[in-house]
Amino acid sequence: MKAPYFAVIFTSSLIDSNDPNYHQFSKLMDNEVQKTPGFLGKESYREDSGKGVTISYWESQKAIEHWKKNTQHLLAQRYGKDHAYSSYELKICKVERAYKYSTLEGNQKK
Amino acid sequence: MKAPYFAVIFTSSLIDSNDPNYHQFSKLMDNEVQKTPGFLGKESYREDSGKGVTISYWESQKAIEHWKKNTQHLLAQRYGKDHAYSSYELKICKVERAYKYSTLEGNQKK
Repeated sequence: MKAPYFAVIFTSSLIDSNDPNYHQFSKLMDNEVQKTPGFLGKESYREDSGKGVTISYWESQKAIEHWKKNTQHLLAQRYGKDHAYSSYELKICKVERAYKYSTLEGNQKK
Repeated sequence: MKAPYFAVIFTSSLIDSNDPNYHQFSKLMDNEVQKTPGFLGKESYREDSGKGVTISYWESQKAIEHWKKNTQHLLAQRYGKDHAYSSYELKICKVERAYKYSTLEGNQKK
């Protein structure tokens, strides 16, 4: 991924980390987002407390808007808001510069 | 925090999650960054595998540059690169829009 591109930082707190419906929606979204034009990748982390973050990366703001309106995603958003999350925060970001380091590759500016 | 502001997404993989020197540097940086002008806050998540992310928030790109050059931080960066991380990635982002939801407060555009 060469900057500039876009990132959505989605921070959330789950009411119940073991909610099976949440995990089912989550898997469905993992599959669905892969098919969305302009999707570049994502990473997710969640603590045992239920607090976590998913950062997704996108080619354009238009691609983010398109994903936001995806029918399956709208259902998941509704479930999340009504049942799964006690709180969440969404940040739409423009990635202006990115650097990568690996012991195998050394420094790279991307 | 009212957009626009800036975010640094720092993704890393630790060679040894239990490295005491890493945790000492990490605590020092937690204290040091709080004193840095323009620092707005941060959140961190790490998996048992050693993979994790720290997202820090800043008033300006200038504040990020200032923190990058902090003397204590330079020592920590050196330790991280030489000893603690097998890989890392740094993304400098402009937060263009942010939304918050909480069951207590309802929707808020920030």
